[in-house]
Amino acid sequence: MTAPLTVVIFGASGDLTARKLIPALYRLDVLGLLPDETKIVGVSRREYTDEVFRETIQPMVKQSSGISWLQGPWTQFAKRISYVSADAEKPEGIQKLNAWLQNRENNQGGRRLYYLSVGPELYPGIVTRLGEAGMNKEDGGYRRLIIEKPFGRDRRSARDLNNILHQHFTEDQIYRIDHYLGKDTVQNIMVFRFANTLFEPLWNHKYIDHVQITVSEKVVIGKRGAFYDTTGVLRDMFQSHILQVMAMLAMEYPTRLTAERIRNEKVKVLESIRIPTMEDAKKSMVLGQYTGYRKEPGVGANSKTPTYAAVKLMIENWRWQGIPFYLRSGKGLNARYSEVVIQFQRPPHLMFPLQKGHSLESNRITLVLQPNDSIRLNFQTKVPSVDSYRLEPQDLSFVYGQAYQGQQLPEAYERLLLDAIQGEASLFMRSDEIERAWEIMDPIIAASELADAPDPNEYAINSQGPECANGLFSEGQSWQPIVPN
Amino acid sequence: MTAPLTVVIFGASGDLTARKLIPALYRLDVLGLLPDETKIVGVSRREYTDEVFRETIQPMVKQSSGISWLQGPWTQFAKRISYVSADAEKPEGIQKLNAWLQNRENNQGGRRLYYLSVGPELYPGIVTRLGEAGMNKEDGGYRRLIIEKPFGRDRRSARDLNNILHQHFTEDQIYRIDHYLGKDTVQNIMVFRFANTLFEPLWNHKYIDHVQITVSEKVVIGKRGAFYDTTGVLRDMFQSHILQVMAMLAMEYPTRLTAERIRNEKVKVLESIRIPTMEDAKKSMVLGQYTGYRKEPGVGANSKTPTYAAVKLMIENWRWQGIPFYLRSGKGLNARYSEVVIQFQRPPHLMFPLQKGHSLESNRITLVLQPNDSIRLNFQTKVPSVDSYRLEPQDLSFVYGQAYQGQQLPEAYERLLLDAIQGEASLFMRSDEIERAWEIMDPIIAASELADAPDPNEYAINSQGPECANGLFSEGQSWQPIVPN
Repeated sequence: MTAPLTVVIFGASGDLTARKLIPALYRLDVLGLLPDETKIVGVSRREYTDEVFRETIQPMVKQSSGISWLQGPWTQFAKRISYVSADAEKPEGIQKLNAWLQNRENNQGGRRLYYLSVGPELYPGIVTRLGEAGMNKEDGGYRRLIIEKPFGRDRRSARDLNNILHQHFTEDQIYRIDHYLGKDTVQNIMVFRFANTLFEPLWNHKYIDHVQITVSEKVVIGKRGAFYDTTGVLRDMFQSHILQVMAMLAMEYPTRLTAERIRNEKVKVLESIRIPTMEDAKKSMVLGQYTGYRKEPGVGANSKTPTYAAVKLMIENWRWQGIPFYLRSGKGLNARYSEVVIQFQRPPHLMFPLQKGHSLESNRITLVLQPNDSIRLNFQTKVPSVDSYRLEPQDLSFVYGQAYQGQQLPEAYERLLLDAIQGEASLFMRSDEIERAWEIMDPIIAASELADAPDPNEYAINSQGPECANGLFSEGQSWQPIVPN
Repeated sequence: MTAPLTVVIFGASGDLTARKLIPALYRLDVLGLLPDETKIVGVSRREYTDEVFRETIQPMVKQSSGISWLQGPWTQFAKRISYVSADAEKPEGIQKLNAWLQNRENNQGGRRLYYLSVGPELYPGIVTRLGEAGMNKEDGGYRRLIIEKPFGRDRRSARDLNNILHQHFTEDQIYRIDHYLGKDTVQNIMVFRFANTLFEPLWNHKYIDHVQITVSEKVVIGKRGAFYDTTGVLRDMFQSHILQVMAMLAMEYPTRLTAERIRNEKVKVLESIRIPTMEDAKKSMVLGQYTGYRKEPGVGANSKTPTYAAVKLMIENWRWQGIPFYLRSGKGLNARYSEVVIQFQRPPHLMFPLQKGHSLESNRITLVLQPNDSIRLNFQTKVPSVDSYRLEPQDLSFVYGQAYQGQQLPEAYERLLLDAIQGEASLFMRSDEIERAWEIMDPIIAASELADAPDPNEYAINSQGPECANGLFSEGQSWQPIVPN
């Protein structure tokens, strides 16, 4: 008989809890995937009773759950939810929580998943309190710690954070969430590459011309100005989501589907990325800032913080020698859209006549990660015609929503919470991944923050970002357009 | 100014003329692709006036033309059509035709395309008469000869026929039609392979497990029993269509898109196909005969003629060493359907867990040649799921009719007639192709016709042919199902 599980959510009064975490746990319960004895306890300083907490979050959970919301199952699920009002940075707050947990566990021990859904400035305090109170000790069941990004703001602060974490928790107790990795389409990158014979032989510098990774957001900064203006897109998106996707695209195959082997391969990619000098970094990136950003609340009137960046990175290994990876992300763009583009080289010799002024578009595989998750393979075909060999690009395509009609595609947090409950760490980031990702980004960020750095290129809201971002490419190449949605 | 063109159709009262040739010429005229001064003259023994001939064929042309039929353009086009009643096997018949042609050309010379739409037993006579009458001499314009299959019934008779043809016409005057090669989707095999970077690196024994070519017919023998019973499916479909498609799939890339270079490459493939001994042939084929065939009019009561065959051939060269090509064709099957299947090998190592009792389907590219011309790339993807890496095959697909909606896809004969008019011989078969194709088929046919050969396997009309045809494959493999349409 396994020990009862308690999911402890620190920062329970925050948005993430009601919008993502509770809906994900609710769905897992509906799917029958939560262990029977599971309880969820929200922790924050606010004074709630269990009942008031449930009622407070219910509307947001309902809204986030969409069609999967059903009152009956919710009522059942809600019984799992409790609330403890405590300041978890203070010893007495943690003691209060611990007492509640021991009581809930009948002092027989139990499994605990601590979810830090709080600002990063609170991580050291809460983790230290947990350690001091012995709540890190795995007696009677595991103790796992989930933390959200940002994991520091450069390599040094990330290492400092890891050191604090490691004073109280071992690496295999720590689950650093990048919700991007919880997306089914991101996990499918591995399946696409390694469960098929067709693509892997082509997946290297002999056939690929370059790779593009785009994480485009339509939203602007809104209320997050004060946070964002000291962060910027390079810290917010590149160090985490984009480098993670790049690592999954570029890695060698893991021999088995285990957390350590997968993460070893990802780290190998990160270690092979050439770290640019600050001089190189200036030439390998284009920064942008959307029109009106400086007037957002909390943003400096002369802020140079980039809300858009396009960066070119190189991987120095046998597979990828000489093949640029172009990475781009921005806010206030014309679509919420994430995709990976594998642009292949041209055929070495073309036997077909080209029409005057036309060049041949070479093959391209597009993995659309969100929304409208899909795969497109752009290839050349013969235009049906009685008198010519006119070529034209067309798509071989696969659309998840069509193939799995009527099925609700899982949310990233469902997968990630279930994995953490089950101790499956493949989709969480290890300390060495985090630190190496910062090591790559540090000189790029430093170059962007030089006192004499030029202003970022202004771009209109709802555009594709600054046009000069195409300047990173070789002659005749450019970013694939971001399709409005 | 180019000499006026006359298309001379021998066997003008036959089905092919009204169902295929005249509709194709009509369409070319509508598309503005016929030279201005083109005339068409039908020749046969029947007594028609020009007017009666036009009226006789009009209903069939209209039916064959479908939506492209328009009375106005037809009336214009019909003015091009004349008729000469003559027995072209007789000198006086050919003289009568020649006089008509010289008159039509005002004795100034002209271009002539002789189309032998007659039974193969008439080829030698007509060709010889044309030669004797000097109608093969290219004075004032080309003289080209189009002939339809069958080109002989074995290598010797094909060679005899070629010798007769070559007595009067040079090889580059001779256009041997295989209407299969006129299909846009068949031509697209070359574009698919050689205008794309993605497929050619995989197109060899390192990645491909085997290849399947299916030409399935729904029709039964009907009135053609007397002809068919002495021919059989091996002569009728394998020596021509299927070996041609196989050659296009397997050939090395031609350096340029010219008739000689393309046909050189095709011949190289045919020359590399291992010619089976009769003993090998017995083991490498499965023959079938549909239930009721022996009761068709004109068919022998104990006929062993196969109406279905499945044959395994090997190509002995660097690209295809060890990779079987499985070829199948039959009448009375459950669909009119032609496809090519490239079955790839499994990934060399699988890191994903398989469900109990499941094996991994390996990748497959399907080129559907007719109907519903399309390309499907069957690959493995992750079933959207919160708690597993369950794999499932799905299709990346491209459907011509969807991409080119509202466009009429060209008919094979349109392309082929236009090519012959323009002297483009790529899609016609050279004498060495024909003879080598027979050389491959001869021992197979001989094995099927041995006095002590077993009866072909009986199969039900509307089925997929005899089930034992799967016995040609290695363990765990089989024919892709023929999809009813």
